[in-house]
Amino acid sequence: MAGRRVLVLIGSETDLAKVEPAITVLSQLGVDSELHVASAHRTPERVVELATTARERGFAVIVAGAGLAAALPGAVAAHTTLPVVALPLASGTLGGLDALLSCAQMPPGVPVATVGIDAARNAGLLAAQILALGDPALSSRLVKARKTMARAIEESDGRIGGGKR
Amino acid sequence: MAGRRVLVLIGSETDLAKVEPAITVLSQLGVDSELHVASAHRTPERVVELATTARERGFAVIVAGAGLAAALPGAVAAHTTLPVVALPLASGTLGGLDALLSCAQMPPGVPVATVGIDAARNAGLLAAQILALGDPALSSRLVKARKTMARAIEESDGRIGGGKR
Amino acid sequence: MAGRRVLVLIGSETDLAKVEPAITVLSQLGVDSELHVASAHRTPERVVELATTARERGFAVIVAGAGLAAALPGAVAAHTTLPVVALPLASGTLGGLDALLSCAQMPPGVPVATVGIDAARNAGLLAAQILALGDPALSSRLVKARKTMARAIEESDGRIGGGKR
Amino acid sequence: MAGRRVLVLIGSETDLAKVEPAITVLSQLGVDSELHVASAHRTPERVVELATTARERGFAVIVAGAGLAAALPGAVAAHTTLPVVALPLASGTLGGLDALLSCAQMPPGVPVATVGIDAARNAGLLAAQILALGDPALSSRLVKARKTMARAIEESDGRIGGGKR
Amino acid sequence: MAGRRVLVLIGSETDLAKVEPAITVLSQLGVDSELHVASAHRTPERVVELATTARERGFAVIVAGAGLAAALPGAVAAHTTLPVVALPLASGTLGGLDALLSCAQMPPGVPVATVGIDAARNAGLLAAQILALGDPALSSRLVKARKTMARAIEESDGRIGGGKR
Amino acid sequence: MAGRRVLVLIGSETDLAKVEPAITVLSQLGVDSELHVASAHRTPERVVELATTARERGFAVIVAGAGLAAALPGAVAAHTTLPVVALPLASGTLGGLDALLSCAQMPPGVPVATVGIDAARNAGLLAAQILALGDPALSSRLVKARKTMARAIEESDGRIGGGKR
Amino acid sequence: MAGRRVLVLIGSETDLAKVEPAITVLSQLGVDSELHVASAHRTPERVVELATTARERGFAVIVAGAGLAAALPGAVAAHTTLPVVALPLASGTLGGLDALLSCAQMPPGVPVATVGIDAARNAGLLAAQILALGDPALSSRLVKARKTMARAIEESDGRIGGGKR
Amino acid sequence: MAGRRVLVLIGSETDLAKVEPAITVLSQLGVDSELHVASAHRTPERVVELATTARERGFAVIVAGAGLAAALPGAVAAHTTLPVVALPLASGTLGGLDALLSCAQMPPGVPVATVGIDAARNAGLLAAQILALGDPALSSRLVKARKTMARAIEESDGRIGGGKR
Repeated sequence: MAGRRVLVLIGSETDLAKVEPAITVLSQLGVDSELHVASAHRTPERVVELATTARERGFAVIVAGAGLAAALPGAVAAHTTLPVVALPLASGTLGGLDALLSCAQMPPGVPVATVGIDAARNAGLLAAQILALGDPALSSRLVKARKTMARAIEESDGRIGGGKR
Repeated sequence: MAGRRVLVLIGSETDLAKVEPAITVLSQLGVDSELHVASAHRTPERVVELATTARERGFAVIVAGAGLAAALPGAVAAHTTLPVVALPLASGTLGGLDALLSCAQMPPGVPVATVGIDAARNAGLLAAQILALGDPALSSRLVKARKTMARAIEESDGRIGGGKR
Repeated sequence: MAGRRVLVLIGSETDLAKVEPAITVLSQLGVDSELHVASAHRTPERVVELATTARERGFAVIVAGAGLAAALPGAVAAHTTLPVVALPLASGTLGGLDALLSCAQMPPGVPVATVGIDAARNAGLLAAQILALGDPALSSRLVKARKTMARAIEESDGRIGGGKR
Repeated sequence: MAGRRVLVLIGSETDLAKVEPAITVLSQLGVDSELHVASAHRTPERVVELATTARERGFAVIVAGAGLAAALPGAVAAHTTLPVVALPLASGTLGGLDALLSCAQMPPGVPVATVGIDAARNAGLLAAQILALGDPALSSRLVKARKTMARAIEESDGRIGGGKR
Repeated sequence: MAGRRVLVLIGSETDLAKVEPAITVLSQLGVDSELHVASAHRTPERVVELATTARERGFAVIVAGAGLAAALPGAVAAHTTLPVVALPLASGTLGGLDALLSCAQMPPGVPVATVGIDAARNAGLLAAQILALGDPALSSRLVKARKTMARAIEESDGRIGGGKR
Repeated sequence: MAGRRVLVLIGSETDLAKVEPAITVLSQLGVDSELHVASAHRTPERVVELATTARERGFAVIVAGAGLAAALPGAVAAHTTLPVVALPLASGTLGGLDALLSCAQMPPGVPVATVGIDAARNAGLLAAQILALGDPALSSRLVKARKTMARAIEESDGRIGGGKR
Repeated sequence: MAGRRVLVLIGSETDLAKVEPAITVLSQLGVDSELHVASAHRTPERVVELATTARERGFAVIVAGAGLAAALPGAVAAHTTLPVVALPLASGTLGGLDALLSCAQMPPGVPVATVGIDAARNAGLLAAQILALGDPALSSRLVKARKTMARAIEESDGRIGGGKR
Repeated sequence: MAGRRVLVLIGSETDLAKVEPAITVLSQLGVDSELHVASAHRTPERVVELATTARERGFAVIVAGAGLAAALPGAVAAHTTLPVVALPLASGTLGGLDALLSCAQMPPGVPVATVGIDAARNAGLLAAQILALGDPALSSRLVKARKTMARAIEESDGRIGGGKR
């Protein structure tokens, strides 16, 4: 395996709260992550440095959250063949549609793995699912997390569902 | 590793040509893939069967291409914690915007990795990048493919660029 | 008739308030309904179970409310030929356009009956209109409800309309 | 039952080819339909006449196909409590998004059952599924049609799927 | 002239506040208007009655405000050749884009004059501009209103503009 | 009346074919029109000249067709209180959505009367409906044109409608 | 150089707060600017006057902020060959998508330089970057501002980044 | 002045035909340009090299054309304070809306000057207008080009306009 950790990137401190569910879910699953603030447009060399050294520093997956033109995931992907999870953020007036298109519509040859708008928890889970391919224990924890989630829905159903209305 | 192969799914034979670049690029990178036609809405049990047996059958990543409401990637992801690459296809009158939103906007807990509209080659590459985490030789081939691609652009530049105009 | 009741489904307890007008209007029209929480992506087997047993349990119509990728109505429709009313919910940052497209753009062969975004009352009414085909008393109540509604508008007009301004 | 037949409406002869799959699938399922050309904006009295007499003339469901502002389904629904299936057509330069929104976004109190853009076959199937609630033989034919459709996909899979690539 | 007054229609009392600027500006310009609540989908006969009698009752222009599927302006226009000003309202979750498309995209043969989303003042002004073709005094008042408006902007500029910053 | 003629404006000769149905329908209704090519961005003084002299030259309504940023109708409206019919044209890659928004979303105080995308015939008809307020003979011809149109639809229905299918 | 100052235009006093970051950043960079309120639709002659005299009054770049149909930048550009920076504002219900399209989609021959929705600071910076071509000291200040910005991000990273999570 | 030439960049040879009108118009105006093929995602180092050396190599403005996620203009702007003209290209299935948003919605601090979708001629003209600030002869040529363009429209009007229709 190239590594076991997840590198989480945002381009601005203002995106911190939006990306935190990714870090939280990784932590809950026992996956180490490291957060950095680095901007594709404002500190591009730092993005290159983080992307190009990610593998040797033990990262296997990179999660990059960005709003508006949302170039960060692609800028990272341009400098590594590690899987990059793109997390589009709704930070402008268009509800994140701009960020979603900017993330998803990558040119041929350099893919990123886009999740939903503001879906930081899913970004973390996707990173974990990728890591779990080489980590049976993590894989088990993911399966368990799915079951916990399913049980929560079943309990919801037990509480509010089923009765005649 | 959970496996080394990629399962490629489409919901209809009419999507075959659109998904083939994924299969081709995987083949060029030495990754085995297996194609199946199974529809989330028309053969849902078959989708469940393919998703739930994918791991034991040696698949590590699943690529699912779909147009319109594009439920296939999510339906697969609901039955496995293997990474699912969602490939939205422009098969209706809206240029694939419907498929992109249907793929990307998954609910919390069940992510898919969405690539661009009709971006089958990128779907295949993303699957390979994920597999390469456990396969240094594949990782080298990916790096080499990136270099080849870069060289092609440099050659383009050599041919048409640079002269005073 | 296959049954007289309406099965109302949501994928998450957080959608409860949004779907309640459907249950309320059914109740006002004397139609029994039963609510369940079941998620296409998180408890897919439960969705299959609810869909496949709906007819024998006396349901004639299924109302499924969902936001974002909104796969629930289609997942239900894939397992029954009972009419499924799809209720797209505005639960993300795109005002429900994602849910509307995900609901409406079903592939050939498996239709759902989509109503407007957050239009739960209309979802209930549509279910009742379908049921009323086999229930003259319900049909009369629907006609009466239309008249009540028309009268309310006429009364509005009487109160605020007509005067010279 | 209010009737056994399906009334199919279009606002212009130019929409004929687009709506025909609805008529065809109904015919294949043994459901009688009757087509009329009547426009919400150009022959509105005729629309009212067709809508208000539909029930007594033996129609149980009305399918209305329309493009652009797509007022026909709503105009019909305003004059009957029979279920109205709205079929948005892509007849302008916006790929039918205008028609989809105009169909789906009905005000509270007067629902229509919207299917996908240009999804005439699904409009017919939805009408049949509604009729089948009171017609066990039709219900069986619908189940059989689903199976035939599933088999076609399985055969596709047999032909092109499964081999190592 | 067919008349001198403006008929203002809304489909629901909840739209009253949104349409009032149209009535206000007409009043300021000395144009009589009459407001009615009548719904294309809920009191369609009343809409027909208002539309077909408008001319004989002394109305020359009809302003119709509507949200969502926004059928009211078109339903009115279908029953009169008086000019109909369509005022799309942002009453749902899509910011009025649905209403704008539903108003503007009328089929060939039955135009309406669409103004901007929630632009009630402009709806009133457009009605006045049409009436002014046969009313030189009103025309003068419109020219004067334009000058007043221009002066207000010039005063803004005097207050906040021009200084070095 | 301010005049009896319609001034038709386009910003580029390439829009000629798209605007011609407006001129044709006006001619069929016996309304004189005069076409000019003048661009809000490329010959703005000419637009001002045409707008400011329109009234004295006997024009009562101005139809302005434009694509993309579609500033022409608003530029005309800024210099006259004659009614301006805005005809958005689909001349770019966005199907005319850009032109529709640029036409319709005028600021408070300066309305235009927007018709559908590429709906030149409706632009001409709307101009005629406005003129007809002061011209009973034209009004009669409009009513007759509506009846002819209705009859054509009834004949369509006679030809293709009604039979059992 | 044609001048050293920046002319900042808005069409309404209500846009003042939105455009102020442009003025602020110019001031921080030592660039003089002058604000005026002038509307393309309500005081068009004033816009022409400001645009045509801008060069002789010592302005080299014009920043024009506008919402909705956002004609101001284009109206200015029609009367000068000075670079015009278009600042689309989110002043309606569509999040500024209307203004963005109205600004960006200028016809061939008369470009404007569009920045992001509500991106006033970027409008000011772009104006400064243009001016800096002829002003080495300003160019140095821009480079320094970039470095300050980069340092702020690095400090963010120092504060919240890097630690194991 | 930082230089007198324009650097024109595309990310792929397939965009060549789309960007050529920029080069042509610059050439017609006597402005030297130099074209290069360099991709933000596939040859990112080359983009950095071109951007960082542009000033010293005598370029004053950079035009960058890109489709889909359209990261090229922003990637260039991240490495220079020279003005960057962003030319969004319609190269996918969404008509270039993705590219427009990806270009225009840059984060605070790093602006680009976006022109219309596929508006290469305008990209070249904007670059020339910027250069002309320091080049009176070019400024004169631009004014002349505007006049030629205006005359062409007037000739159009002479040919097809004005006659009674």
